[in-house]
Amino acid sequence: MLVLLKPGTPETTANDVMTRLRMAGLAVHRTDHDAQVRIAAIGDLSAVDWEAAKTWAGVESLAKLAKPFKLASRAFRPHDTLISVGRATIGSEKIVIMAGPCSVEGEEQAFTIAERVAKAGATVLRGGAFKPRTSPYAFQGLGEEGLKILRRAADAFGLAVISEVMDTAQVGLLSRYADILQIGARNMQNYSLLREVGHTQKPIMLKRGLSSTIEEWLMSAEHIMAQGNQQVMLCERGIRTFETYTRNTLDLNAVPVVKELSHLPIIVDPSHGVGIRDKIAPMARASVAAGADGLIIEVHHDPDHALSDGPQSLYPDQFDSLVAQIRTIAGVVGRTV
Amino acid sequence: MLVLLKPGTPETTANDVMTRLRMAGLAVHRTDHDAQVRIAAIGDLSAVDWEAAKTWAGVESLAKLAKPFKLASRAFRPHDTLISVGRATIGSEKIVIMAGPCSVEGEEQAFTIAERVAKAGATVLRGGAFKPRTSPYAFQGLGEEGLKILRRAADAFGLAVISEVMDTAQVGLLSRYADILQIGARNMQNYSLLREVGHTQKPIMLKRGLSSTIEEWLMSAEHIMAQGNQQVMLCERGIRTFETYTRNTLDLNAVPVVKELSHLPIIVDPSHGVGIRDKIAPMARASVAAGADGLIIEVHHDPDHALSDGPQSLYPDQFDSLVAQIRTIAGVVGRTV
Amino acid sequence: MLVLLKPGTPETTANDVMTRLRMAGLAVHRTDHDAQVRIAAIGDLSAVDWEAAKTWAGVESLAKLAKPFKLASRAFRPHDTLISVGRATIGSEKIVIMAGPCSVEGEEQAFTIAERVAKAGATVLRGGAFKPRTSPYAFQGLGEEGLKILRRAADAFGLAVISEVMDTAQVGLLSRYADILQIGARNMQNYSLLREVGHTQKPIMLKRGLSSTIEEWLMSAEHIMAQGNQQVMLCERGIRTFETYTRNTLDLNAVPVVKELSHLPIIVDPSHGVGIRDKIAPMARASVAAGADGLIIEVHHDPDHALSDGPQSLYPDQFDSLVAQIRTIAGVVGRTV
Amino acid sequence: MLVLLKPGTPETTANDVMTRLRMAGLAVHRTDHDAQVRIAAIGDLSAVDWEAAKTWAGVESLAKLAKPFKLASRAFRPHDTLISVGRATIGSEKIVIMAGPCSVEGEEQAFTIAERVAKAGATVLRGGAFKPRTSPYAFQGLGEEGLKILRRAADAFGLAVISEVMDTAQVGLLSRYADILQIGARNMQNYSLLREVGHTQKPIMLKRGLSSTIEEWLMSAEHIMAQGNQQVMLCERGIRTFETYTRNTLDLNAVPVVKELSHLPIIVDPSHGVGIRDKIAPMARASVAAGADGLIIEVHHDPDHALSDGPQSLYPDQFDSLVAQIRTIAGVVGRTV
Repeated sequence: MLVLLKPGTPETTANDVMTRLRMAGLAVHRTDHDAQVRIAAIGDLSAVDWEAAKTWAGVESLAKLAKPFKLASRAFRPHDTLISVGRATIGSEKIVIMAGPCSVEGEEQAFTIAERVAKAGATVLRGGAFKPRTSPYAFQGLGEEGLKILRRAADAFGLAVISEVMDTAQVGLLSRYADILQIGARNMQNYSLLREVGHTQKPIMLKRGLSSTIEEWLMSAEHIMAQGNQQVMLCERGIRTFETYTRNTLDLNAVPVVKELSHLPIIVDPSHGVGIRDKIAPMARASVAAGADGLIIEVHHDPDHALSDGPQSLYPDQFDSLVAQIRTIAGVVGRTV
Repeated sequence: MLVLLKPGTPETTANDVMTRLRMAGLAVHRTDHDAQVRIAAIGDLSAVDWEAAKTWAGVESLAKLAKPFKLASRAFRPHDTLISVGRATIGSEKIVIMAGPCSVEGEEQAFTIAERVAKAGATVLRGGAFKPRTSPYAFQGLGEEGLKILRRAADAFGLAVISEVMDTAQVGLLSRYADILQIGARNMQNYSLLREVGHTQKPIMLKRGLSSTIEEWLMSAEHIMAQGNQQVMLCERGIRTFETYTRNTLDLNAVPVVKELSHLPIIVDPSHGVGIRDKIAPMARASVAAGADGLIIEVHHDPDHALSDGPQSLYPDQFDSLVAQIRTIAGVVGRTV
Repeated sequence: MLVLLKPGTPETTANDVMTRLRMAGLAVHRTDHDAQVRIAAIGDLSAVDWEAAKTWAGVESLAKLAKPFKLASRAFRPHDTLISVGRATIGSEKIVIMAGPCSVEGEEQAFTIAERVAKAGATVLRGGAFKPRTSPYAFQGLGEEGLKILRRAADAFGLAVISEVMDTAQVGLLSRYADILQIGARNMQNYSLLREVGHTQKPIMLKRGLSSTIEEWLMSAEHIMAQGNQQVMLCERGIRTFETYTRNTLDLNAVPVVKELSHLPIIVDPSHGVGIRDKIAPMARASVAAGADGLIIEVHHDPDHALSDGPQSLYPDQFDSLVAQIRTIAGVVGRTV
Repeated sequence: MLVLLKPGTPETTANDVMTRLRMAGLAVHRTDHDAQVRIAAIGDLSAVDWEAAKTWAGVESLAKLAKPFKLASRAFRPHDTLISVGRATIGSEKIVIMAGPCSVEGEEQAFTIAERVAKAGATVLRGGAFKPRTSPYAFQGLGEEGLKILRRAADAFGLAVISEVMDTAQVGLLSRYADILQIGARNMQNYSLLREVGHTQKPIMLKRGLSSTIEEWLMSAEHIMAQGNQQVMLCERGIRTFETYTRNTLDLNAVPVVKELSHLPIIVDPSHGVGIRDKIAPMARASVAAGADGLIIEVHHDPDHALSDGPQSLYPDQFDSLVAQIRTIAGVVGRTV
């Protein structure tokens, strides 16, 4: 149930309403929109006499939260969620660009790439320290050593850090080094992990599962938000279809759909979505034209020797040109880069 | 086998080469590129002594046509195919815009919409006279009467006409009224129909089947081209996935992939691809940003009363704004509208 | 609308009811079930005063036909449709086995295979004379000559003939030689062709499209039935998914689902569904265990030299063993072979 | 690399070979087949001089392990893996039947169902204590209390216990109560969890991810086996396709394919695979006909009041009939129940 308070309701009254709802056994979440307090009350609604609730002090009106996702829905929070990370405000009019190598491979690699992407306009450095690999025999990442390198490289060039967390036991470690915790596609429905990151104060980037519907994806965001962490951004990274020419099928339809259903920012990852270097730039441009709030792109100065995902990494020069193109397209949709 | 002649080879010599190949039982197709004659010889290649062929008068070199599609491949024809229809040259630097109602419903409807889309910048009028409908009990189109109306409306505003042909028996009829024959997604592998339109001189727009791979799509183009009709454009209109929020999943990855594999123009149909009115414009913008050669968009002045596909038709005003946005994005990718 | 007449209603009264419905512009179809006449009236239902219709002579009751498919639904015809072809009654307690080569290649091939499959228990001989091939350069079938051979081989061993029709123009030709006309997966939504075979008196086997839902498949059957031909059987032959190890993903779930929704017989084609020889027998057994009314299986005495689909054809000995296994499984589900 | 020792090689010699391989930095796994020791050496193969290795004492021959999965492949272990759990030997000629409620709901429910399924022929009791739910607001299971009840109910009727583990932190807890640890479809690529259960001595049932290929599934099994736990069984439970009539599309093609590629047992879960009660029995019969080593089926004595998955649970009477049918089909494929 969505409980809308009258504009100007004193804080003490608002707190009273929330306490009554909590005492009825409901989970209570609050957002403020246009000087109005909006309270989502979730759980066994039969415990409250809603007819009576309409007359509680401060209450203006009630509305059903019809979708299965509540906190992630536009109905609860009509305005876009903004997430501040370093110099970036994700979800704002300014499109955020995250870039960096697939895996952190060493000091020189990380610093070289960080410098280039920072200069080109990126504000967040990506890089994997723990890699989910289909084969148990493939390179699994540098672990904590990789995180340290990533942090230093980012700090050297004024970037924030995003890196993937694969397990509940890693959440603390990742939180020490990264500004944004990434949940990978394979873990989109790892509910234990979602709950765990929901207890942190860190912004979370939740990648869409390979065969997840948009609704399931928003439900996974809800798992995080229900624990109290509202700083969630979504990341479209390609779905699985019958087509084998591309690595995955980047589903840009998801961009305008998510913007309608939810207030959460949506980032697009064309690198994993298409998986072919010279198709990344067209799809990155298309993402911005479709309304994405940001991009996350793999860049490597020497992709032929990358330890993972070389064939889908842009050369730094290609990345420079891409950012320039995106700048113009952003203008068409009322955004900046 | 691809037989490349020396630049400046006289026509009589070129003809001799083609005759020798034909006499060996091969199908022979010619294209000219940068003052060079390129000959594709297709069939049982063992009938020719290719070592000897390298020494034939006029022959510069030979190359394998490795892909299963030959005439549709960039290997055969490195330069983009241009298709002239009315005022449009499809595949050129200028992005073509096709627009109009899903179905032709009557004189007033067709003229009203034709006027609006022409004014906004469209050069081709779309409209169905024979409609492939899932239900045998649904509106099946006005038939020839619809084609007459469509032709008159297009002529009144200087537009070319595109309309769907559903059956070999209709090819003659459609050819009398339409400038471009459309093969619908459901008929992408109706090989009898592909062969039949391959015998006409009309440009063909071949829609991608709901679950066809890009290679199968190009093979269907090859079915048309093998009959002698080289004027084929492809149309991405959404594939079927597990996602049900959108009508289909518009696969924009196909745009850069097709541009690499083939010289044929590629048009995008966001109306059928997404199926939700307010998602059409974002996906149309994204299509152009991804490198599409054109768009085909459903526009209706009164979509609530449309006999088919109302919910995915743009209002004329929305269409005007969209064309303006596309104009700027086209500039980013070196195109015009 | 479904109009149920009272048991024992005289034919003249039944005819009166049908005439009244037809005069209101409705399409009228009749089936008899347990001594009761059931009339489906389809079209613009507002033309009839249904309250009044309840009092018409002979009318017992009315019921809505809620599904989009009407004539194909169990609601219209509660009992299983039986289709008699040669010695087979498809849809009966006896499971029908159709077998033969992918393509007819010549007299000796056809007779050799026909003899073997007849001896093993097949009652219908399959064989393609017109082949839908992805490549325009692949073997397209022997055409009418192939049909003649197929007919002679079938007659020699007391078998009925099934063969694919690819185009409206071929319907007459095929009807001269074949007992069952097959509509291939690629043509499942070729509505012109569906309409054309709907005008014949021949049993039709309608294969499921590669990405068609069960509802769309039944709607395609409805296209045939709406023209008056009620002798339609469905054929599950695999759908397209992301899995590439098997040629397609044979969807056996469709068997019990179709049996619930429709009275039409359902045949399974494991040869195309899986596409790997040693996986055909397990999936054929599974089909019968799931409740299929029949099987259609590719058998070739020399698959290494088959002109098409050799790798998925059973050797005659394998086919013999398979039929023996199926006989026992049929008993478990109350059927015979 | 697969190192095959000569039959009769003394243990000390075999150990020497394994030690040399380990000292070269390779992971070493051993299996015995027909009195022959087979050693899989995995890792950076360039560290060994393989020509020389052919002459090592005891070595008969070498063979490449070509597939990306090594320990899970038939090439490494030609004979079927047998897993003993309680009275069942999974992978043997006797088909194992696992049955029980979706979630453990209480003492009475668990005992009632356990008694019925044990009497019908099941040897393993299933029941969820920790439930992965799309919604954070849905019933999440009884937790440890549920495990205790499940254990008591199983013990009372001589059954083994299978239950799902959702997180690395739960592995110890689950191991105390369950005989088989289930990895759910959503966690098939939760590599941290796979590694963790790979360190236990418990048999693992690995469900196929909703959109995972068969190869990826076997690679996930490899993640477990690479840690030393060879007791892995696979569970096909339906994949995601465009079809919406059934909950998922149970992919029985996977059964014969897995049996060819791997020595691991394969169980089928028709309850989740189809999701519609009256379609469970046909698909369970089909699973056995296709060659499955076992079934896992949801049974509930009062499905209308089940806290989860009621509509896909069989009534105990239906389960009884199903087991009887399966017994006969098992005979056809040389198995027993």
